[in-house]
Amino acid sequence: MSELPALLAANARYAEAFASGDLPAPPRRHLAVLTCMDARVDPLRVLGLDLGDAHVIRNAGGRASDDAIRSLALGRALLGIATALVIHHTDCRLRGVDTAALRAALVEAGADVPPRHDFLPLPASIEEGVREDVARLRTTPLIPPGLAVHGLIYDVRTGRLAAVSA
Amino acid sequence: MSELPALLAANARYAEAFASGDLPAPPRRHLAVLTCMDARVDPLRVLGLDLGDAHVIRNAGGRASDDAIRSLALGRALLGIATALVIHHTDCRLRGVDTAALRAALVEAGADVPPRHDFLPLPASIEEGVREDVARLRTTPLIPPGLAVHGLIYDVRTGRLAAVSA
Repeated sequence: MSELPALLAANARYAEAFASGDLPAPPRRHLAVLTCMDARVDPLRVLGLDLGDAHVIRNAGGRASDDAIRSLALGRALLGIATALVIHHTDCRLRGVDTAALRAALVEAGADVPPRHDFLPLPASIEEGVREDVARLRTTPLIPPGLAVHGLIYDVRTGRLAAVSA
Repeated sequence: MSELPALLAANARYAEAFASGDLPAPPRRHLAVLTCMDARVDPLRVLGLDLGDAHVIRNAGGRASDDAIRSLALGRALLGIATALVIHHTDCRLRGVDTAALRAALVEAGADVPPRHDFLPLPASIEEGVREDVARLRTTPLIPPGLAVHGLIYDVRTGRLAAVSA
């Protein structure tokens, strides 16, 4: 695995053409996107966003985890975030599995995982998972008030987003 | 704040030109990138990666949080991740502040935050922060063995990456 030299060479080409060195830290569109780490999702392109437009928070499943809440709370308090989008996607490997099965897969792969460690699997219904995470972001006292939160579903086959009603 | 209709219109244009509907879930380059949510960082472009190449995990600071570890552990066990890059960046608002100051800013903005809530601020030295997070990923028993972890620094002014020696 010596991917690193090839990646650094690709970065040198990126840096040569780089012309966005004067962007400010606060996102131009006062937006944060919370979505899955999945390789088939490129949230900036999916939403037509430019560099500098939005915070992007990603984890397995696009869950409203404690860490996602930490990130959104800081974005709201320090960097002017006014809107957050929660985007789950079709064909997610975290949907419809349970924590016991996930733990078994990790232990099988050689990890040392405590018995009830929570991997935040998604419920079988994609809409239900989105609503759960939207509700968590709307109700946590850790995020300063005034953040609008919307839920969306991304279809990895079509590239299309659909809003989930609250 | 009715950003949503404009974003959905931009997505409709993306979906019209979308031609990547047959990508498999496992990242083509067996790669995961952990970096900051900062709006000035577009990890795919920075590394010359295509849709489908890599998992992308992002949070405030690009920290090796419990949630980032959850995500990498699942990527390693279920989706064949072999290499992880930890990328912190220059001018990060989480560097050189302490948890008390962050908590004060959140409380000032109206959040209700327990006294010693940890916002995972970064140490003053950017290299030290990267080394801390690389070490955490290399030593956690939750990630199945065999994941190569590299640390990098991204300069938001130049677009350039630099490797951090372990």
